[in-house]
Order: sequence, then C-alpha cells, then structure tokens
Amino acid sequence: MKFYDYPGAPNPRRVKIFAAEKGIELEVVMTDMAKREHKTAEFMRKNPSGKIPVLELDDGTCIGESVAISRYLESVQPEPNLFGLDPVEIAVIEMHHRHIELELLSQIGASWVNGPIVAKMGLIEPIEAAKERGDLMTKSFYKRLDLALGEHPYIAGERYTVADITAICTIDFATRLVGLRPADEHKNIWEWHERVTARPAVTD
Amino acid sequence: MKFYDYPGAPNPRRVKIFAAEKGIELEVVMTDMAKREHKTAEFMRKNPSGKIPVLELDDGTCIGESVAISRYLESVQPEPNLFGLDPVEIAVIEMHHRHIELELLSQIGASWVNGPIVAKMGLIEPIEAAKERGDLMTKSFYKRLDLALGEHPYIAGERYTVADITAICTIDFATRLVGLRPADEHKNIWEWHERVTARPAVTD
Repeated sequence: MKFYDYPGAPNPRRVKIFAAEKGIELEVVMTDMAKREHKTAEFMRKNPSGKIPVLELDDGTCIGESVAISRYLESVQPEPNLFGLDPVEIAVIEMHHRHIELELLSQIGASWVNGPIVAKMGLIEPIEAAKERGDLMTKSFYKRLDLALGEHPYIAGERYTVADITAICTIDFATRLVGLRPADEHKNIWEWHERVTARPAVTD
Repeated sequence: MKFYDYPGAPNPRRVKIFAAEKGIELEVVMTDMAKREHKTAEFMRKNPSGKIPVLELDDGTCIGESVAISRYLESVQPEPNLFGLDPVEIAVIEMHHRHIELELLSQIGASWVNGPIVAKMGLIEPIEAAKERGDLMTKSFYKRLDLALGEHPYIAGERYTVADITAICTIDFATRLVGLRPADEHKNIWEWHERVTARPAVTD
C-alpha cells in the first residue's frame, strides 16, 4: 500500500491526519509537484486526474482522491469512527463536510488558482475578478462558520469527525498560502482551531 | 419526511432518481426558486446554505445537501446498493463520483454562474473569462469521460451506481441549460446516456 504525497499540499494532508487518527501507517512515496511528477504518463495511469494524493493498493488498484481514500481507511479500520455510525449521523456529518468542501474549499481554491503564486508558475492565466469573488465568498463563509462554532464545538456537532479534518486543512491552506486567514474577531473559529490542532494526529 | 424540491434543478433531481431506484416515495414540497423561496429566513433555518434539496425528517432534523440525503436513504434502505459494498468498491465508486463532481460538475457550474441565464437574473456579475475556462475544462473532461466509457459500461465500472446518477444529472443540465452538450463524436458517452436513461427510475 503506497501513498503518493507532496508535503504542504492540503489534500494529502487530509488523508495523513485521517490515517493518524486511526493509527494506520502509510508508506509514503514523494511525488514532486514542483517537478510536475503528478503529470507524467506513468502517474496519469494511476490517476487520470493528474492529482495527489493517490493510494495504491498491493494489487495495483489506485484510489486517486482524498475522501475516497479516507473512506477506504474507514472501511478497513472502523475505529475511531470519523464518518458517522447511524443513518442520521452519517447524513449530518456528510452535509457539514460537503458544506465545507463546496462552499469554503472551492472558493479558497478559486482564489488560489487565480492568485499570485499560481500565476508565477505560468500554468494558468489568472482571472482577477474570480479571485475577488473567491475572497469575498470565503470571508462570508467564515462569518457563518464562526456563528455555527458558537453553537457546537466541532464542525458536524458534538464530536470530532472527518469534517474537522477537511476544515483544518482548508483553513490552514487559506492562511498559509492564499492570504485568506480568518479574522481575529472570529473567536469561535480560533477556539475550534486550537481544540483541533491540539490532537496528536493533527500535524503539518 | 419532507423533500424540498424545485423542478428542473439538477441537485434535487439526483435525489429523486436515487430514491426511485430504491422504491422510496418522497413527500415533495415545492420551493419556488424563481420567487427566492430558498433564501427566506424560514428556509435558511432549514439549510444555512440557502440551497435545495433539503430533506426534513419527522423529528425536524434537516439534511441540506444532495449526497448527504442520498447517503441517508442508502442507510435506511440498503437495497439496491448504490454506494458500494466492500472497502475497495466503496472507495472506487467514491473516487469516480468525486471526479465527476470536482472536475465536471464544478466546471459546468462555473459556466452556468457566469453565463447568460444567471446574468439575466441580475444576482451576480458574470465573469466572461471564468465562463470560457469552465467551457474549456468541461470539453476536456468529456474527452476523458468518453475514453473511460469505452473501457467500462458505467461511470464507476461494471455496474450502475450513484456516480451514474450524478453524471446523468450533470450532463443533462449542461445540455439543457448551459450550452455544453457533449459532442456527437463522443459515442461512448451517448451510448452510456441511452443505457442509463432507459432505467425506469431515471426521469426528468
């Protein structure tokens, strides 16, 4: 079982934290994105999306997407549960998880793709208006998230789940690389951030 | 159990097909998006995202997101299985499902949000360059999808799954409302389209 990774990238980090919560050790294979190793013909056979992370099983099956890999790990190592246990909990965790992905991560992604670091790489023509919209939508979601985290201690409610892992990687990525750090006044977000980063599994 | 719906919207359609495959009848409540009923304070209490679909359970719990609702239905009515049965199948279906969402639906969404119909509604300033990029990425994904559907009859492999439901709703939305119909030369896509739309559960 090989895990194709690149340090600092937010999506592999999600899986590394998820695996650490379950006590699963991953055999890490470095895929140098700076050298475009994720776009070689050999890598594209493992994942036609040309993205990391990928988990390659011993029989050669490749799972190329962070949540799909996390679900595999949840199936083979159910404890501690991170995706929910009964029909309502499974649905509520999925809802909160997808709200973070579809309404926060996607907007931060738009600001990243159209921002200065990606522009310097020369791979894509930045669209300034798309970055502005991404920034605006991100800040708006932070307000909503801060209110929600005043109501319950974790993203999906009373306990720590996969939705927290995605949120921590999303917000750290936004803070470190996209210039979209949540404002200091969002005290509930920052208290949650401290609560979650105190976990031994939550590393950089 | 109430299902908040709007005819023609692609995300509620995903759930309606999913439920029909399982023989589950949904008590449909019409939410008139043209009248902005999905943005009222009352509706936003059900789903702070201000989006449909929402499934409201008898105890008042609201599940506001199409895949979260589908997972709820899968849990309460496991047959026929649509999300996978063993660890590898669960992961492979999720991977293909998310590739459709993250690399096709998201791009069609960008073309839609920045296209003429939404512009006419006057809710958002269209970004022409973002529409052009969405169009380009959609056409590029169609090529990849056509190749993949030459290798296996369904999106996630040998059998019909939730990934097909998402793909059919995505492609029909693109065709009907976004001007992004797959080209005639993508014969494998069109053969798959015929195969999938022949199912009694796959209605408009």
